[in-house]
Amino acid sequence: MISKAKIKYIRSLELKKNRTAEGAFVAEGPKVVGDLLATMHPRLIVATEEWFNSADGMGEKAETVCVSEEELQRISFLQTPQQVLAVFDIPECPKDATFNAGHGLALALDGVQNPGNLGTIIRIADWFGIEDIYCSHDTADAYNPKVVQATMGSIARVNMIYTDLESLLSSLPHDIPVYGTLLDGNDIYSSSLTENGIIVMGNEGNGISERIRKLVNKRLLIPNFSSSADRAESLNVAIATAITCSEFRRRKGVEDR
Amino acid sequence: MISKAKIKYIRSLELKKNRTAEGAFVAEGPKVVGDLLATMHPRLIVATEEWFNSADGMGEKAETVCVSEEELQRISFLQTPQQVLAVFDIPECPKDATFNAGHGLALALDGVQNPGNLGTIIRIADWFGIEDIYCSHDTADAYNPKVVQATMGSIARVNMIYTDLESLLSSLPHDIPVYGTLLDGNDIYSSSLTENGIIVMGNEGNGISERIRKLVNKRLLIPNFSSSADRAESLNVAIATAITCSEFRRRKGVEDR
Repeated sequence: MISKAKIKYIRSLELKKNRTAEGAFVAEGPKVVGDLLATMHPRLIVATEEWFNSADGMGEKAETVCVSEEELQRISFLQTPQQVLAVFDIPECPKDATFNAGHGLALALDGVQNPGNLGTIIRIADWFGIEDIYCSHDTADAYNPKVVQATMGSIARVNMIYTDLESLLSSLPHDIPVYGTLLDGNDIYSSSLTENGIIVMGNEGNGISERIRKLVNKRLLIPNFSSSADRAESLNVAIATAITCSEFRRRKGVEDR
Repeated sequence: MISKAKIKYIRSLELKKNRTAEGAFVAEGPKVVGDLLATMHPRLIVATEEWFNSADGMGEKAETVCVSEEELQRISFLQTPQQVLAVFDIPECPKDATFNAGHGLALALDGVQNPGNLGTIIRIADWFGIEDIYCSHDTADAYNPKVVQATMGSIARVNMIYTDLESLLSSLPHDIPVYGTLLDGNDIYSSSLTENGIIVMGNEGNGISERIRKLVNKRLLIPNFSSSADRAESLNVAIATAITCSEFRRRKGVEDR
């Protein structure tokens, strides 16, 4: 049995103000929780007996509550709850972040709003070995339950750094290029791309904001191959991120092979 | 004023069985409806005065109803309705589709289930100038209102062909390669890619089905660049489609430039 107070606490973490006050977020399902347990500190694990049996001592690190599937259904943020829900500490984020040049290539998100897009971008970063994502304060919160689930566990391996993007980009050393995909950019496939730098991706509706656009010094374009007159006008931001990261890593791959 | 019968008719088109029976689907918003009006026949246009004024005679092709924003709110499938909703004929789809080799590169979807993913894939195809998408019968319906909206109008320019994928792929001429991304595939960045052929993308959970996998004769792999031990295990199907299409078109682009 789980107490009403605990259910209330977990459900309260749907809201950002409560996550910030508590310094905690919720993750669900064996895959996402399992990935997070490998790198992060759990406060509370609520799971079915089936999960505790298969997880083999993983629950020893935190307070645990064993529940029935019906109870989990009442607590979960998912339509179909999956055996386990856990509360983790939100990793600390420095107030004035500086660029970690040692990590090579990084992403910067300038006002990405949709939780699904943000989660997908975190998953893409993980796939392409990008360790740091710098986010403007108006980017969606990475610890929103919808984002956490959309990362499929990748949030355990990518550093999310919320910061004033304008001052971060303004204070970069001169040998760190700032890339962005813009309508007046150069064809990404034939542009020279470096192994380090920051790739800026913008808001779903408005793209990269004017303040940040001025700081992009390598303007790229993903060319449109449609021959139709009324062709697609844009790509979804997660799709553009995937194509851009793929092209950067392809170049690196060619040298490594 | 719009009649109750018309509201009922429009709302009924949320379900596939009703869309099939009526041979009709719903699209919403100036962008999506505008793109569809350029290529498809509308049966009914329900819009605010604002839209009719700006659309300049576009409503003359069909039965039209002028409504208030409050009325549109009651009819719409969207949380925030956008000026116009229209009902279009579903394009006819041949019972036994054959591959249109004249269109060069095509996509085939083997059980893609999520409407958002399907809509995004249609938008990617449009961007990369891919005219035909062959879909297995267990792929989500492209005329589901959620899919139509996610295509951002691209459904007006891409042919959706629902067919028995296994028999289509089995009967292809020998000079048409069948590509698929599989765990045992060859690095896509260093594989030879042709300008024609079919790229098969699989189901969100299970990938390409066994029956179809046997028919893939060019196995590709999008390499994982993460150095972490518990790294991302997979990419979302729309993301994998974007990366694959981008790499095919990059090669073409290099030759055309």
